[in-house]
Amino acid sequence: MAGPSFYLDALIREFSRLPGIGPKSAARLAFYILKQPMSEVEKLSQTIVDLKKNITFCRKCGGISDTEICSICSDATRDTQTICIVEEARDIITIENSRGFHGLYHVLAGVISPLDGIGPEELKINEFFARCRDEEIKEVIIALNPTIEGDATTLYLARELKPMGIMVMRIAHGLPVGSNLEYADSATIIKSLEGRIIIK
Amino acid sequence: MAGPSFYLDALIREFSRLPGIGPKSAARLAFYILKQPMSEVEKLSQTIVDLKKNITFCRKCGGISDTEICSICSDATRDTQTICIVEEARDIITIENSRGFHGLYHVLAGVISPLDGIGPEELKINEFFARCRDEEIKEVIIALNPTIEGDATTLYLARELKPMGIMVMRIAHGLPVGSNLEYADSATIIKSLEGRIIIK
Repeated sequence: MAGPSFYLDALIREFSRLPGIGPKSAARLAFYILKQPMSEVEKLSQTIVDLKKNITFCRKCGGISDTEICSICSDATRDTQTICIVEEARDIITIENSRGFHGLYHVLAGVISPLDGIGPEELKINEFFARCRDEEIKEVIIALNPTIEGDATTLYLARELKPMGIMVMRIAHGLPVGSNLEYADSATIIKSLEGRIIIK
Repeated sequence: MAGPSFYLDALIREFSRLPGIGPKSAARLAFYILKQPMSEVEKLSQTIVDLKKNITFCRKCGGISDTEICSICSDATRDTQTICIVEEARDIITIENSRGFHGLYHVLAGVISPLDGIGPEELKINEFFARCRDEEIKEVIIALNPTIEGDATTLYLARELKPMGIMVMRIAHGLPVGSNLEYADSATIIKSLEGRIIIK
């Protein structure tokens, strides 16, 4: 509905379109903007456009980058023989934040989903096979989301990669750390049982 | 921590500073921005700066406005004899959205809070008394937040306004619609009992 300011309504409308931001959060954000000094507001506004203007995708791994080859792919200290395959570029950031992986990445840009008309050709799978030929890759860790499509894509990749003599792994599916058996769904419990490991 | 893109990190940092936006939401928003067409991103960026550039506060009520006198104060169809007193300009939007009030508003820009060094002089209270002299006000509805400071400010205003022959009311405090007695706190229960009304 129309409020006392066209500009306020416009910004609330823009904010409401962002994911996870409802009308109330959008209003709270707009009023926060209103209270900030102009310099801060201009900085936010500029940073939004700068991202879109300056960012690109790494020609090698498909991840977010400011340069043709991203800082991860060009980092000489990383393990170039281990590649982690992820669904989306943002998954790289999530895994990097965990500091639990020191190899390189490859972004599929989706998963195989016949119902949505997405086959291997629609994804960056051929690009990955090309990397397997050009680079000396020993281990591939598939880190797709634990969905039906993610699992099917994982199996497809494993079947294609094994004949190349590459060790193909997938990340463990099970109970998240800090969670409670009582609240876990059956599918997760089953995965956690299937994926059990020996206590040494 | 530093990710593969300076621009992405910068925007995540900017978004994280907004109220109610944690690092994970900030990352989700930044990736959403990345996927939008440039025209949409420029529109969002421009709308943010436009708000700050163009908005002002109504000289009469202190509410958000694009003009010297806001669209509510200058709306000839509204009841000019009933004034609703609110803490912040954004409270006007909340009440307007409810469509339950058709009078005018006055923004105090805070509440009396001796511990924070905020007395009546720091608020727009004298401005309101001036309005009471200049305008023909019959009823004042005090709609401050139900806090200790809000209640104290309500009592202060009531004491000052009553001698002017103005009917002073405050909004009801009690159980929110759709809520459950079981989950209500004792202070709200007490307010709801105190504020009981006769069922006709």
